[in-house]
Amino acid sequence: MNVVCIGRNYADHVAELNSARPKQPFYFLKPTTSILLPGEGPVIRPRGVELSYEVELALIMGKTLKDFPVENEAGAIDAIESYALGIDMTARNVQWEAKKKGLPWSINKGFDTFLPMSNIIPKSAIPNPHSIELYLSVNNEVRQNDSTELFLFRVPEMLSAISKVMTLEKGDIVLTGTPKGVGPVGPGDVMRAGISVNGKEIEEAKIEVPVEESTGAYEYAET
Amino acid sequence: MNVVCIGRNYADHVAELNSARPKQPFYFLKPTTSILLPGEGPVIRPRGVELSYEVELALIMGKTLKDFPVENEAGAIDAIESYALGIDMTARNVQWEAKKKGLPWSINKGFDTFLPMSNIIPKSAIPNPHSIELYLSVNNEVRQNDSTELFLFRVPEMLSAISKVMTLEKGDIVLTGTPKGVGPVGPGDVMRAGISVNGKEIEEAKIEVPVEESTGAYEYAET
Ligand SMILES: [Mg+2]
Ligand SMILES: [Mg+2]
Ligand SMILES: [Mg+2]
Repeated sequence: MNVVCIGRNYADHVAELNSARPKQPFYFLKPTTSILLPGEGPVIRPRGVELSYEVELALIMGKTLKDFPVENEAGAIDAIESYALGIDMTARNVQWEAKKKGLPWSINKGFDTFLPMSNIIPKSAIPNPHSIELYLSVNNEVRQNDSTELFLFRVPEMLSAISKVMTLEKGDIVLTGTPKGVGPVGPGDVMRAGISVNGKEIEEAKIEVPVEESTGAYEYAET
Repeated sequence: MNVVCIGRNYADHVAELNSARPKQPFYFLKPTTSILLPGEGPVIRPRGVELSYEVELALIMGKTLKDFPVENEAGAIDAIESYALGIDMTARNVQWEAKKKGLPWSINKGFDTFLPMSNIIPKSAIPNPHSIELYLSVNNEVRQNDSTELFLFRVPEMLSAISKVMTLEKGDIVLTGTPKGVGPVGPGDVMRAGISVNGKEIEEAKIEVPVEESTGAYEYAET
């Protein structure tokens, strides 16, 4: 099972990180071990890390896709088995170093607990993945709140771009990118996130997860 | 299951790609879909891609490791269930662009067929993973041939560094980096690779795999 995460898929988020706007979708992988299911406990901030949240709609694939044709809009939706909400936790200072030095993103995106997920959202609850509202709050202060209408690349373009490179399989998770408003969280903070469709919140999409400081061996050092 | 690949672990390979020598081990992930088992057919060169080979010793993990202590040499070997040989195929031109632009390596490392693997090598065949010879030939011309004595970071250091970030699980594959001699291959070429221990070749480690041009939808374009 692979977790495939689209980067830079909302213009205002590209701008807030001073990133270049991509000419085509690109992605990175998170390890399966980064997944934190509902109730599994806190997100852990590794020592020396600037920890950032990125709320994202997750697609849970129901079919095998290879070389999926971008023009097949109905087929793209049909290939999705269900949805979830996810928070793509990022070690931002580690990522800045990786970007500067041309290193892979696997460490900065891949710590244990770096992918809190909601419960499964049945497909019927999201009639159109291109028109839902995502939000994320920290200590009940809203930090991210935007519609997937703002996607730079829509679902068929994402699935086409990924599946030209690697086969997508049933059960794979595709994170669709984060809107503007990313920022740091630390020990004692509580993140809450969710999805609204036509102004009505989806119960299964709710995430509530605290942040705690690591007691583990990792401490940030330059690579 | 995760496939974790150590980068820049042999000094002469770091030099041949004009890379900076890392102060600590770093890694990237390959998707499970990149694995090509023995007999599963050719490595596919995506269109517009400079395809490069990197022969590497693979550790197949037998235990769960988290915050593994670097000084536990015996425990590191004990955590390995078996070995294999792998070829970490790389879209080198796509990787150069990623390095220049600070993008993730997941696409350049993650195409379908980009991880040809040998059969499983029983642990008894490799008494010491720090003292075996790897080789890779293209059309029977030897291109890589070095000893794992040249590792910049030895197995305990690799497992410690990885498991400070992410939990390693039974069945995970760790690729240990490639020695010098990487280079391009294309359609019609046949790669052969293997491992010798004390001058004697290990039968299970033998890889023989041809390269074919893609007929798929991907064609290289700038991101
Ligand atoms: Mg994986
Ligand atoms: Mg993200
Ligand atoms: Mg390699």
